[in-house]
Amino acid sequence: MQQEIHVQESIFKKNKINAEELNQYLTGAGVFALNVMGAPGAGKTTALLRLCKLLDRPVAVIEGDIATDIDTVQLSEAGIRAVQINTGGECHLDTPCVAKAFERLMPVKGYVFIENIGNLVCPAEFMIGEHAKVLISSAAEGADKPYKYPLAFEKADLILLTKCDLAEAVGFDFAYYLAGVRQLNDHAPVVQVSVKDGGFEEAARWLCARASAVMQW
Amino acid sequence: MQQEIHVQESIFKKNKINAEELNQYLTGAGVFALNVMGAPGAGKTTALLRLCKLLDRPVAVIEGDIATDIDTVQLSEAGIRAVQINTGGECHLDTPCVAKAFERLMPVKGYVFIENIGNLVCPAEFMIGEHAKVLISSAAEGADKPYKYPLAFEKADLILLTKCDLAEAVGFDFAYYLAGVRQLNDHAPVVQVSVKDGGFEEAARWLCARASAVMQW
Repeated sequence: MQQEIHVQESIFKKNKINAEELNQYLTGAGVFALNVMGAPGAGKTTALLRLCKLLDRPVAVIEGDIATDIDTVQLSEAGIRAVQINTGGECHLDTPCVAKAFERLMPVKGYVFIENIGNLVCPAEFMIGEHAKVLISSAAEGADKPYKYPLAFEKADLILLTKCDLAEAVGFDFAYYLAGVRQLNDHAPVVQVSVKDGGFEEAARWLCARASAVMQW
Repeated sequence: MQQEIHVQESIFKKNKINAEELNQYLTGAGVFALNVMGAPGAGKTTALLRLCKLLDRPVAVIEGDIATDIDTVQLSEAGIRAVQINTGGECHLDTPCVAKAFERLMPVKGYVFIENIGNLVCPAEFMIGEHAKVLISSAAEGADKPYKYPLAFEKADLILLTKCDLAEAVGFDFAYYLAGVRQLNDHAPVVQVSVKDGGFEEAARWLCARASAVMQW
C-alpha cells in the first residue's frame, strides 16, 4: 500500500509527465483509459451515458470542456462518477491536465473515459495516456467527414457513428462514409448507433474485449 | 491602374501581413470579406450555396479545409467562383494563407466568404482580414453549444442556426440556446434556416446592409 502511494505521488508530482508514463501508471493501477474524440455536438456524452451501463467493470469519466460543467452534472445525475476539466480556451486536452484529473479521480479500477474537447482536428494529434481512441462521429455532420478530417479517423481504434436515426433525413451516404474511413483505417470497427434505435452493445463488447486483452484483471 | 498593382504587390509580398492590413487593402479594393466559422458538418458550404444567390454584388469563396477540395468542387459546379486552401492539418486559417488565396482570386469586387476550418474553437481566436464574422451553428449539435464554446458565439456578428428542420427530432430547445447566445453577445442576429424550409433571405439582407454601411460601393 505504501508502495502504491509512492508511485502515485511520483507520477503526479512531475510537471512534465508524458502520455506514455501516464499510460503505464494507469495500466499498473488497473485503469483502462479511453480518449473520446469528436466534433461539437457529435453525441460524445450521450454515447458515454449508454456505454457506461454496458461494461463489465466500474466506469468513471474525465470530462473535458472549454467552459461549463453541463456534461459532468448530467453524468453525475445518471450515477456515473465524473470529474470536470475546464481548459478555458485550449482546444484539446494534454497529458498534465489529464494526470491532474486522475489525481482527483483515483483510486478507481475499471474503465475511465476521457471526453476530449469537442474538436475534430486538434485532439487527434495528442496522446493523453489512453489505451485506445474512440471517435464519435455523427451522421448529421455528413458523410464526407473522413475525407475532410483524416487524422481523427486514421487514429481511431473504435468509431461510433451516432444519430443514425437522422441518416435518412440528411441524406447520409453510408457507403461513401465507410469508403473514406477505410482509406485511412483498416482496423477500427464502425458501429452505427442512435439513442432512438440503440446499437451500443457492439461497441461495449469491443471495449470489454480490448480491455481484457491489455489489462491484468 | 499602375498604382493599384503596386498596392496589391506590396500587400501580398509581405511575409507577415497582419489582419488589419489585409482588411484595409480589401476595403480599398472593393471586397467585403466574411469569416465563416462553424463546427464540422454545421452546414457552412450549404449555407454559402444559398446565400451567394441572394446578394446584391458578385460573390466568391475562399474555401479552407485540412484536406480535399470537395467543397470547392461543389461551389464551382454551382457557378460560384472559389479557390481552395488546404492547411494540411492546421486547425484554423491565418492571415498570410488567406492573403495568398486572395492573390489567386483577385481581381474581384463584391462579397468574399472565407470558409474557415470546421472547428468551433480555434478559428474564433484569429482575425483573418474580415469585415464581419458569420457563425454557422447547427440545431443537430444541440442547444448547449453557446455555453460550451463561448468565444465563437461572443465574436459572431451574424449567427445562422442551420438544420432547423431537425430541431424537433433532436429535442432542440431554442429558448435555452438563445439565452446562451445573449449572455455572450447582445447584437448578432440569430437567423433560423434549413435547406428544407429556407430562411436565408433575412441573413442575406443583413449582409447587404452591413456591406453597404462599410463599403464605398
